[in-house]
Amino acid sequence: MEKPTYIVDVPLSEVNVTRWRAGVSSEATDKVAEEVPIALIYNGVSHAVMLATPQDLEDFALGFSLSEGILQSKSELYDVEVVTQAQGIELRLEVASDAFAMLKERRRNLTGRTGCGLCGAEGLEQALRLPVREKNDALQPNIHKASGASLGKVPATSILKAFKALQTQQVLQQATGATHACAWVNMQGEVVMLREDVGRHNAMDKLIGALAKSAKQENGFVLTSSRASVEMVQKVALAGYDMLAAISAPTGLAIRIAQAYGVTLVGFLRDEQFVIYAHPQRIKN
Amino acid sequence: MEKPTYIVDVPLSEVNVTRWRAGVSSEATDKVAEEVPIALIYNGVSHAVMLATPQDLEDFALGFSLSEGILQSKSELYDVEVVTQAQGIELRLEVASDAFAMLKERRRNLTGRTGCGLCGAEGLEQALRLPVREKNDALQPNIHKASGASLGKVPATSILKAFKALQTQQVLQQATGATHACAWVNMQGEVVMLREDVGRHNAMDKLIGALAKSAKQENGFVLTSSRASVEMVQKVALAGYDMLAAISAPTGLAIRIAQAYGVTLVGFLRDEQFVIYAHPQRIKN
Repeated sequence: MEKPTYIVDVPLSEVNVTRWRAGVSSEATDKVAEEVPIALIYNGVSHAVMLATPQDLEDFALGFSLSEGILQSKSELYDVEVVTQAQGIELRLEVASDAFAMLKERRRNLTGRTGCGLCGAEGLEQALRLPVREKNDALQPNIHKASGASLGKVPATSILKAFKALQTQQVLQQATGATHACAWVNMQGEVVMLREDVGRHNAMDKLIGALAKSAKQENGFVLTSSRASVEMVQKVALAGYDMLAAISAPTGLAIRIAQAYGVTLVGFLRDEQFVIYAHPQRIKN
Repeated sequence: MEKPTYIVDVPLSEVNVTRWRAGVSSEATDKVAEEVPIALIYNGVSHAVMLATPQDLEDFALGFSLSEGILQSKSELYDVEVVTQAQGIELRLEVASDAFAMLKERRRNLTGRTGCGLCGAEGLEQALRLPVREKNDALQPNIHKASGASLGKVPATSILKAFKALQTQQVLQQATGATHACAWVNMQGEVVMLREDVGRHNAMDKLIGALAKSAKQENGFVLTSSRASVEMVQKVALAGYDMLAAISAPTGLAIRIAQAYGVTLVGFLRDEQFVIYAHPQRIKN
């Protein structure tokens, strides 16, 4: 039994395939997206291994840390080293000692925990990492609102325009058909920042990291090529953004979380139509 | 700030939405898939909370336990109790004491681990839970091969037929547009078992659990409505199945794992065509 080969430093590669079409098979080549084990290491301690597209990894390191609540702000991240190994990539983060102490405490609780899994409000909100709005500034990175801007009304035409723009800018998706994108869209419907990944959560974390790093931030909303699941809405809410537009379907709990946390949620975005699932007041005709 | 409402006992529900189409907005209702926190509790100890569709949960409990390597065979699972709570569902598993001891040990190692995240072959294979074929029987549930059947040659027409059958049988997907399916397909291309979930990994675990429980098992392969990512191929390989056909794209590492572990991998399955990424010898014209 051979071992799989590891390709860790490119977002896509070419493979030999057999194409079968209407009874005829032929040899061909195909471009496929690479999915690479990415280890997140905080102050020398391994925390998690994620499977992700190996590009924009500094953005991923920051965005993942913010989304997971490991860091409360970008200032707690002192340095990221991207180290390519034979079988994957290590992201070596140097973080503030307070953040690291909290992470160690959290990991200790993780093993020690016994008893029921969904024993009351706190348990579930902890499990889902829902934003605690009462302690807004302390618990949310709130990247968007930190800039002092409020969203205002988004023209419906900007949402449609962004949908068309997204497709043309998904470079990796066009080549491989295997990746998702998350984008920051301004009020005119222009895609001002876009990140791609084999995983939709990773694409969102990369975007959140990239936005947190950018000094000046235009007012706007998040657009994703994927479905709007609980975790996608949760990441948007935790980051303090006001609106998420998804190409595909939302889930019921994702809608109710968007409603409760003041996030405008758009789904089934197509050429000339979309559906608003939460807080339609932010969208104007 | 209100809290989100929890709906935990139905796979889909109806919501009020605002439809926007070509400049006109109207009020309507929409069916959406529910995504429910499901806690997996082993012998009284909480292990994980997954977001999943609340149906076929006994299958999920067994399939998840086999896929994660917590159980080596279905005989180690003595009982599953499905307990509905206000904010989610608890799956209370009673498992063999050996399996439980191993799980506790694994969780201890998880917190204690320090150092690099991808430090050599063992580290990564552990991280990815790749099957160790040398110790085949000991480490793989190997549900399919345990029945003594070998796959033989799959007719290309059966793969196409299964593609059409899958779409008509995705009940939840037809209603909500938000769910994936995994199915067991026999050599004639008939879907003999199908499981749906908001998460593709959950759908696969449900199918693996359902197959492990079924006494008699027809020869065949796994079909999924999703992409073929590393984790999907890994679950198929760990369960000991010989072939995975996916509607959507595979990733590079998923292809190489399929190649190394002897799994035939089909992707981009459409009405009259598909692409074979690994071990084409199992498919006949």
